[in-house]
Amino acid sequence: MSSETASALAAIVGAERVLTDADSLLQYGRDWTRFHTPAPSAVVLPGSIEEVQAVVRLAAQEQLAIVPSGGRTGLSAGAVALNGELVVAFDRLNTISDFNPVERTVRCGAGVITEQLQQFAEEQGLFYPVDFASAGSSQIGGNISTNAGGIKVIRHGMTRDWVAGLKLVTGTGELLDLNRGLVKNNAGYDLRQLVIGAEGTLGLVVEATMSLARPPKDPAVLVLGVPDMGAIMQVLSAYQGRMELQAFEFFSELALQKVVEHQGLQRPFETPTDYYALLEFEQVSEADMDTAMALFEHCVEQGWVVDGVISQSVAQAENLWRLREDISETITRWTPYKNDISTTISKVPDFLAEVEQVVNGAYPDFEIVWFGHIGDGNVHLNILKPDALPVDEFKARCGEVSKWVCEIVQRYGGSVSAEHGVGLLKKDYLGYSRSALEIELMRQIKQAFDPRGIMNPGKIFDA
Amino acid sequence: MSSETASALAAIVGAERVLTDADSLLQYGRDWTRFHTPAPSAVVLPGSIEEVQAVVRLAAQEQLAIVPSGGRTGLSAGAVALNGELVVAFDRLNTISDFNPVERTVRCGAGVITEQLQQFAEEQGLFYPVDFASAGSSQIGGNISTNAGGIKVIRHGMTRDWVAGLKLVTGTGELLDLNRGLVKNNAGYDLRQLVIGAEGTLGLVVEATMSLARPPKDPAVLVLGVPDMGAIMQVLSAYQGRMELQAFEFFSELALQKVVEHQGLQRPFETPTDYYALLEFEQVSEADMDTAMALFEHCVEQGWVVDGVISQSVAQAENLWRLREDISETITRWTPYKNDISTTISKVPDFLAEVEQVVNGAYPDFEIVWFGHIGDGNVHLNILKPDALPVDEFKARCGEVSKWVCEIVQRYGGSVSAEHGVGLLKKDYLGYSRSALEIELMRQIKQAFDPRGIMNPGKIFDA
Repeated sequence: MSSETASALAAIVGAERVLTDADSLLQYGRDWTRFHTPAPSAVVLPGSIEEVQAVVRLAAQEQLAIVPSGGRTGLSAGAVALNGELVVAFDRLNTISDFNPVERTVRCGAGVITEQLQQFAEEQGLFYPVDFASAGSSQIGGNISTNAGGIKVIRHGMTRDWVAGLKLVTGTGELLDLNRGLVKNNAGYDLRQLVIGAEGTLGLVVEATMSLARPPKDPAVLVLGVPDMGAIMQVLSAYQGRMELQAFEFFSELALQKVVEHQGLQRPFETPTDYYALLEFEQVSEADMDTAMALFEHCVEQGWVVDGVISQSVAQAENLWRLREDISETITRWTPYKNDISTTISKVPDFLAEVEQVVNGAYPDFEIVWFGHIGDGNVHLNILKPDALPVDEFKARCGEVSKWVCEIVQRYGGSVSAEHGVGLLKKDYLGYSRSALEIELMRQIKQAFDPRGIMNPGKIFDA
Repeated sequence: MSSETASALAAIVGAERVLTDADSLLQYGRDWTRFHTPAPSAVVLPGSIEEVQAVVRLAAQEQLAIVPSGGRTGLSAGAVALNGELVVAFDRLNTISDFNPVERTVRCGAGVITEQLQQFAEEQGLFYPVDFASAGSSQIGGNISTNAGGIKVIRHGMTRDWVAGLKLVTGTGELLDLNRGLVKNNAGYDLRQLVIGAEGTLGLVVEATMSLARPPKDPAVLVLGVPDMGAIMQVLSAYQGRMELQAFEFFSELALQKVVEHQGLQRPFETPTDYYALLEFEQVSEADMDTAMALFEHCVEQGWVVDGVISQSVAQAENLWRLREDISETITRWTPYKNDISTTISKVPDFLAEVEQVVNGAYPDFEIVWFGHIGDGNVHLNILKPDALPVDEFKARCGEVSKWVCEIVQRYGGSVSAEHGVGLLKKDYLGYSRSALEIELMRQIKQAFDPRGIMNPGKIFDA
């Protein structure tokens, strides 16, 4: 970056908010993926929407690429700066304001932490239902840009379902104020929907009006030991037929072992099984617990469940959740290669059988950790890097098998990125889920929002 | 239309499915609006997606504009053919198939009637919750293209929320298969969302995978006599604070008078009030009725409600609904000029007070019928044409006042089309709800999907 550009940035945000030290460039230049070496030219921390606009206008003038940076918890390298980009970080746009109890909406700066919004909602007697392991670090702007999902999607949907309005700074520095919190607005194309999940390629999400839900009743959590994937789907069907589930997750025995060992947790019960299902439901009345127990007995009788445990308190429910929630963080030390794939729910058993066959055949020497949101048709396939193997070689080997996995995804009409987004990591696989024409339409849409191509270039697709 | 083009169309769909008689041109060339004189060149009735593609390819080659035609119940002249366009009608794409009880989804041709889907859902023990007065005629493709809302939005959302996937034939005749029923799919921009509510300007919706809901318990309906708009919002707040409402509608005394007179219905109670609220809730247990009655008494004590009635059976609930549901059809004979406006819910009382003042001042000699989905912030302001006044003069006078109404909408950050769409009728007012940049982005997006500009040109905005 030229010293003129650096001075111009400093004039906008203040010199102390333009960071160029090696540590800042490293920290702000990457997300939770660890396959790339970050190399941004600077990090800038604007304190207002107007400052973001001024930074973007400067970048457009200088043809300087911008990478947006939220909580940097992304898992597809959507927020990685590799080539001298300017990182725009939203930490200072962290105000929650304009809570409206009639609408049940609240205005959030892009830098508001997910957990901060969850706590705010709780203080108002309400509930922000999008939740996932990285909620303590991820920011609302990033959640919107990746349409974050998580552990309550089966009941409450994705981030998309909770965005009543958003403000976007386009690639020319102009501000779009999209939908303004309206419940009903059929006046032209819903551009808000296009921005949600666009991973910063259409512009910078700077503010959002988020909807809040009524709080759920006390949750109860079941963890069930299940012999195979087919049985998991039977359990899902049995419970969904009679109860409204809040969550239906699964994880493999190896995932459980890693979490128990590294987080100091107890196994839910002694009997080991190949897979575990975790269910959450609201206890609206005592009848709910009775129904859940009756279903448990039915599942045991059918041979779908080998053993199980049910929470007797909120604290126990939270502890059981840690068995599932702590997996992602636990396995980070093995630089996991993640496949975040989905299909329609009823195809999951056949789909997983095919994927398992390919993966087990291809990686006899690698540890495979399976978990995910199986009630939504979404599974996370994590391949752990052996300590001795260099990162590049590991990535190359995984990439090749990913291709075979993606071919299965394509045959099943599934998604190569169910919830993590595409970023850099899944870009080469986009064509397995989206047609050439769809990708060309995306390019032209990006061109409209970002004519100079400075907004997170090279993410999702190449311009 | 040249005889060559007519022959080429006949070769695609069969000669008997190319209609050019005056009656067909009139019927298929318009929707429920009656402000324009339809003048299509022909109507074509394709029987498959491939036939639709072939028709579009021919039209693209001949630079022949296409107007899509569903149930033709639109209220913004989105499906009106004025200038020799080819009308593509979807009546023959009316198959419901591939019901999946695990996903709770079903595949619908674009021409499936809304009521047909509702009945199908009921037969499966499920529920299609998007409902409105024209459900007996409107088609799924049209519902998607206008993101139809209706009377259950407060609980179940708009059509957008029930589209798990859709197929679109673009302006070049190519087929996009968007989202394929996946619950989770963050692989690139969600183009499906862009098509929903695009009023056919991006292409022709030919098929959709629709989600179905669990059926609600027996509904109970309350009709309450309310002295003013402010009181309606107090009633809404009181009920929403303690119950999950399925619907919260309102209508004015004049609306009630028209419906009672022309549909042979009884007034819900003798006391006339300026406005009426209609509430629906699920009777999950007896406690719900007790809560509803306690709230009723509270509202009476506060002076928000003057009189009221509650349904004692499903049949009674349906009869009470007719007081609200039959309004739109009843007033059709007066060629009503419709304003379908919204704001955020908490601003509704101030917003309506301003709108009322302008409207009452401007139309002292016109009858004004108010009704709408006030729980969503959406009101329908209908101005009835006096029999003696020519349509053009009536439209001109209404259009002028609409400008003033739209200025209020703009000041409140509202929408000039909450649920009816823009079509031809609201095109001049789009700028009150969307910025010049937003409209320019819409144009460029249309250009990408429809490079020859043949897809419902002139609707929403001019190219």
